This record gives sequence, C-alpha cells and structure tokens, in this order.
Amino acid sequence: MKSYTEYLTFNTKKRREYINITAQVEEIVLKSGVKEGLALVNPMHITASCYINDDEGGLIQDFDEFLEKLAPYDVKKYRHHQTGEDNGDAHVKRQLFGREVVVAITKGKLDFGPWEQLFYAEFDGRRSKRVLVKVIGE
Amino acid sequence: MKSYTEYLTFNTKKRREYINITAQVEEIVLKSGVKEGLALVNPMHITASCYINDDEGGLIQDFDEFLEKLAPYDVKKYRHHQTGEDNGDAHVKRQLFGREVVVAITKGKLDFGPWEQLFYAEFDGRRSKRVLVKVIGE
Amino acid sequence: MKSYTEYLTFNTKKRREYINITAQVEEIVLKSGVKEGLALVNPMHITASCYINDDEGGLIQDFDEFLEKLAPYDVKKYRHHQTGEDNGDAHVKRQLFGREVVVAITKGKLDFGPWEQLFYAEFDGRRSKRVLVKVIGE
Repeated sequence: MKSYTEYLTFNTKKRREYINITAQVEEIVLKSGVKEGLALVNPMHITASCYINDDEGGLIQDFDEFLEKLAPYDVKKYRHHQTGEDNGDAHVKRQLFGREVVVAITKGKLDFGPWEQLFYAEFDGRRSKRVLVKVIGE
Repeated sequence: MKSYTEYLTFNTKKRREYINITAQVEEIVLKSGVKEGLALVNPMHITASCYINDDEGGLIQDFDEFLEKLAPYDVKKYRHHQTGEDNGDAHVKRQLFGREVVVAITKGKLDFGPWEQLFYAEFDGRRSKRVLVKVIGE
Repeated sequence: MKSYTEYLTFNTKKRREYINITAQVEEIVLKSGVKEGLALVNPMHITASCYINDDEGGLIQDFDEFLEKLAPYDVKKYRHHQTGEDNGDAHVKRQLFGREVVVAITKGKLDFGPWEQLFYAEFDGRRSKRVLVKVIGE
C-alpha cells in the first residue's frame, strides 16, 4: 500500500469564500503515484468544509444565502461567543456542509462524474488555514 | 491491497426517490473478495446523495418533507436557474444529506448495525444517473 | 495492509448527549499499529452521529438548540411515529450532522488540526449503542 500526504494553505480575503480545489487535489493524486485507492480531503479547522458540487456562480450564491439564513452571522446569537469568539455561525455552517470528502481514485485519477468539483468552503476566513489531502492505495 | 470498482445506474420515474441499495452494495463487496477494508459509495452526480438510515416508509416521507421545507422546489427561487436549470433545490438537498458514505468491511461483509440500510437519494431524477462503489482492502 | 476493528459502547443518561471520544479513538489507532492510513468512525445506529468540531460547552449547546429548532422532538410531528417510535427527530438530526467521519492517520497519530475533536452525538439515548472504529493502512 502506498500513502501520500500533503497540506494546502488558504488565507481568504473575505469572511466566507468557496474555492474550487479540484485541480490542486488532482495534482496531489498524480504525485502520489496511486492508481487505485481513496483520497481524503478535509479542512484541519472547524469553521470550514470540503464538499463536492457544481462550480456555478449562481449556485454558490444560493448555497451561501441558504447557510446564512439557517445559521446567520450574529455577534449576539451564539453561546459560543461567551468565550470571546464571534464565529458561532461558521461552526454551524460547517456542520451543515460536512467536514471531509472521500473520493475514489481509478486509473490514477479522481473518479468523478461530469459535474463533480471539489470545493474548500471557508466560513471564517481572513487568516491562514490548512486543508489535508491524504491518498492511500496502490 | 485489493481494489474493486463498480458503477450502478438508476433512472427514477419520479423527480425524488429514495432507493435501498444495500443488497447491491453487499453483492459488490462479495465480488471484490475483500475481507477487511472500506467501501466508498457515492453518486457521480451533484443532485443526489448516498446515506445510511432506516428503511421505513413513514420516516422516508418525513425526510422528504423536511428537505422540501428547507429547500423547496421553486423555479423562481434559485440564482442557479439563471443558467436555464430548475434544480437548485436538488443541489441544496444533496448538500444537507451529504454526498458519500464510507462503510467498514469486516469478515467479508458490510459491518452494519441492525437497522443500517444504504440509500440512494435522488433529488432530480427521471434521467440516467450513476453511483460509484469502490472497495479497497485485503 | 493492516486493518484493525474495535467497537465502543455508550449508554447515555440523557436523551441527547455529545461525548468527546478523541482519546478513545487515538488509543485504538495506537493499538492498530497503523502509521499511515485512514480511520473510519461511525455509530452503528441511525439516531446518532459522529462528527468533528470544537469541545466548547457553549458551542455544543448552540448545536443542540440549532438541531432542536430544525427537527424538534415532537411525538405528534413525524410519520415515523405511526410505527410506535417517538424518535423521528433523532433520525433527522442524525442526517443533518452526518453519520461517519474519516480521519487521516499520519506518523501513527490522528492527523488533526489544533481544535479538531471527535464527538459521538447521541440523539436518542438511554440505551446501549455501539460505535465502530476501523483502521486501515500500514
């Protein structure tokens, strides 16, 4: 069994951003030399998500509005803010969009359908944050 | 390490359907010859989910109503529809129910609790769509 | 390839509880002898979740209130209750928080960021329930 690990770093300009990282993850899979296996991709922070969906600007705005409606940014709303934080909304948004994705690697490539694109969703950005990519297989 | 990949195809009659695919995935695990490992099951489309829960008709209706309430089908509601699509709701529903499941294989079988059943949830059907099953292990 | 499987058992006093199981999973990874690989952690029941987020009491209350608002405990609300059950809310809460987590193992340890903690979230407790931990790698 082969394994290969790499860490990507992001520092978004906005509080919330949705970044297509498909090409970066594909490159890591190529470097790993794994032809058949699995790739795990997850933020190492708890106010961000990795998810797979369409890279279409309108849809990404729909997602952002949906999350903001369900778990709005609000300094007064969250008990978590009694610790001095202001990012309770970002923790909830991350729970809704999930933490990690696991992707099949087949014949050396991410085994994606035609519209599957891998995103890093930042809900509390403007600081340096890491994404782990772990590839295992043969 | 062994690996085995198979693709299932679904073409639902209704826009939304919840299909129990446990037996099909179990058969694939058997074919793979893997005794100890992991199975990844995911739609290759971005308006569907694979998830694990109870195969009980009332509960499935509860799920469907819950999703429809949070992210209703509505031609006018979603920015994504400016592209000519009408399935913005299906993309959001998929985000809520997640993309993939990863299941342990122990002694050659899906290592499930007594009520765990694996579902393909279609949120924008009536066309041919694929589900990937990837098994790795030994 | 190595593999190692262990089952944890929980019997919560309250209907809903959020239990930090990071140390228990770390110990299992250590026992497995796997240095590079993946750990899968999932409840074997369908009214519970495993998830990764902060171990901060206020945030956990925020999570609980958020889930209770979206999918309230209500004996009359869910079709699932026509079977005699009263835990429809717990099935929906579990869907929102997801089933499993997959965690990278690097140099023999859970490859976590500084605040990542692994939780067992029970939404219908007060009875014995199991969590599966499966480690694969080398």
